[in-house]
Amino acid sequence: MGILVVGSVALDSVITPFGHKDEVLGGSATYFSLAASYFAEVSMVAVVGEDFPEAHMTFLKNRGINVSGLQRRKGRTFRWKGEYGLDLNTRTTLDTQLNVFADFSPKLLSSHCSQDYLFLGNIDPDLQRSVMEQMKQPKLVACDTMNYWIENKRESLLKTLAAIDLLVINDSETKELADEPNLIRAARLILSWGPKILVIKRGEYGVLMFGPNSVFGIPAFPIENVLDPTGAGDSFAGGLMGYLAACGACDDVSLRRAVVFGSVMASFNVTDFGPEQLGNLTRPEIDARYREFRQLASFDDISGKYTEVGSKF
Amino acid sequence: MGILVVGSVALDSVITPFGHKDEVLGGSATYFSLAASYFAEVSMVAVVGEDFPEAHMTFLKNRGINVSGLQRRKGRTFRWKGEYGLDLNTRTTLDTQLNVFADFSPKLLSSHCSQDYLFLGNIDPDLQRSVMEQMKQPKLVACDTMNYWIENKRESLLKTLAAIDLLVINDSETKELADEPNLIRAARLILSWGPKILVIKRGEYGVLMFGPNSVFGIPAFPIENVLDPTGAGDSFAGGLMGYLAACGACDDVSLRRAVVFGSVMASFNVTDFGPEQLGNLTRPEIDARYREFRQLASFDDISGKYTEVGSKF
Repeated sequence: MGILVVGSVALDSVITPFGHKDEVLGGSATYFSLAASYFAEVSMVAVVGEDFPEAHMTFLKNRGINVSGLQRRKGRTFRWKGEYGLDLNTRTTLDTQLNVFADFSPKLLSSHCSQDYLFLGNIDPDLQRSVMEQMKQPKLVACDTMNYWIENKRESLLKTLAAIDLLVINDSETKELADEPNLIRAARLILSWGPKILVIKRGEYGVLMFGPNSVFGIPAFPIENVLDPTGAGDSFAGGLMGYLAACGACDDVSLRRAVVFGSVMASFNVTDFGPEQLGNLTRPEIDARYREFRQLASFDDISGKYTEVGSKF
Repeated sequence: MGILVVGSVALDSVITPFGHKDEVLGGSATYFSLAASYFAEVSMVAVVGEDFPEAHMTFLKNRGINVSGLQRRKGRTFRWKGEYGLDLNTRTTLDTQLNVFADFSPKLLSSHCSQDYLFLGNIDPDLQRSVMEQMKQPKLVACDTMNYWIENKRESLLKTLAAIDLLVINDSETKELADEPNLIRAARLILSWGPKILVIKRGEYGVLMFGPNSVFGIPAFPIENVLDPTGAGDSFAGGLMGYLAACGACDDVSLRRAVVFGSVMASFNVTDFGPEQLGNLTRPEIDARYREFRQLASFDDISGKYTEVGSKF
């Protein structure tokens, strides 16, 4: 089944302790689409300026991504510049130029409206709802958000949350959104507002998912050569939604596997600057990393047996 | 097989956002022994003062812990006072009175020297080696340390590390010890100095273990009512060593299960002040939490099959 993603396409300039790159292809819709493209048909709704390189358009098309909704407008493409600290856990935004993204008002084509899976990237929650209203009858709607919307458009964000199925945010956003320092209580509170599933991204610490009936946790894949974490969260969401769309199910087991495939895509993404290596993977590589995740996280067989020892008291 | 633990026994005064308790039973040897006592015979070597309440001694004995090596010396018991921040991730030491612990020089009884498992709590690395030298032929030696020894007794600490099998430290200590911001590279470096196994405690984010042939990661058990994290790391080490001693093996599967049992014991410990609830568990409760961990962390069956979907490219 097909996925529609609405979000940003940007030109990113990134400085990390290991180097820097200027004006690489970036944005939430970009990373999401590339990651999801290994699993399902993806259509992208976003806006770029007249200066957006044709090579980037070709790169996206080569991954089979439907870019008919990627509008080219008069003006310059959205630009973001950021710098990461030594452990890559802290990020400082050095410059943001919204340019054509400032007036982004997503209009869906009729082919978009009938997609089964919808991912609302981190944009104004008013826009997120306007997209939802244009959709016919999506099977699953997921969204991301950020501290800016939590702080400045809380009421609108709560309306969006009441209408979606799955929320993907990071742990500090979870605590801030719920105004609750305990992550577990924060998660339960957010679930009471509407979403059926809350997926909490914890960066190098992995992911925690709160579903209707269970909690699932997985560490991040241990990566020695993290070069640039930009786009990791969106790659994660792309792998997650891609797997769900591909299997067409949303039961507990499918959700857990989707979280692992999301983590797989994020683990590939962080090992280089920009989205290039994310666009040049093969499905066997992805499946092999999935199996490595199983090795990383498993400690028992499914039969529920383990050596009963030391029951001396 | 039996475990010997050498470490501190203290009277802790703890302030958290959820309350405070004065002079509760604490110390690394205390939490370790209580957790390990559900799996194996534990003997404790530590020192207390004349003021150490007899009730605490009884509490330890009631868990079957051998306290023949718990020396009572002239003077006052080691006291520690600390305060936790709102999210319980930051801890400020308000007061430390070493008292009789200042001159602690562990002398083992002959029954101690023949134990198969040795855990060296967070004490001066010189003392850790002096204990090792008194042991006959332990099957497995594990140790803990802290930033104080990393910063002030680095050379001695490195000698200790060269002689042990298993190191249990937290993630910031791992990075500081290796002087390397990437945790994975830091772990590989530390393993090159001697220990065969490195277990990295990440608090609410879980545990990462680097063994000779594999990496294992598990999230922490999601706990809504964390009241006091004091002793979580030592409870973890106690469950880990307890399971290893009980099964008498140190293969990859046993180590993974031991990490889960360690996480189980830590998850019980944090839900109340002091060590009381840790001393009042039952083995069925512990085994039930282990099974809950399996539910938390599993995403696939052991056969290696998962639904192959979406291989469109």
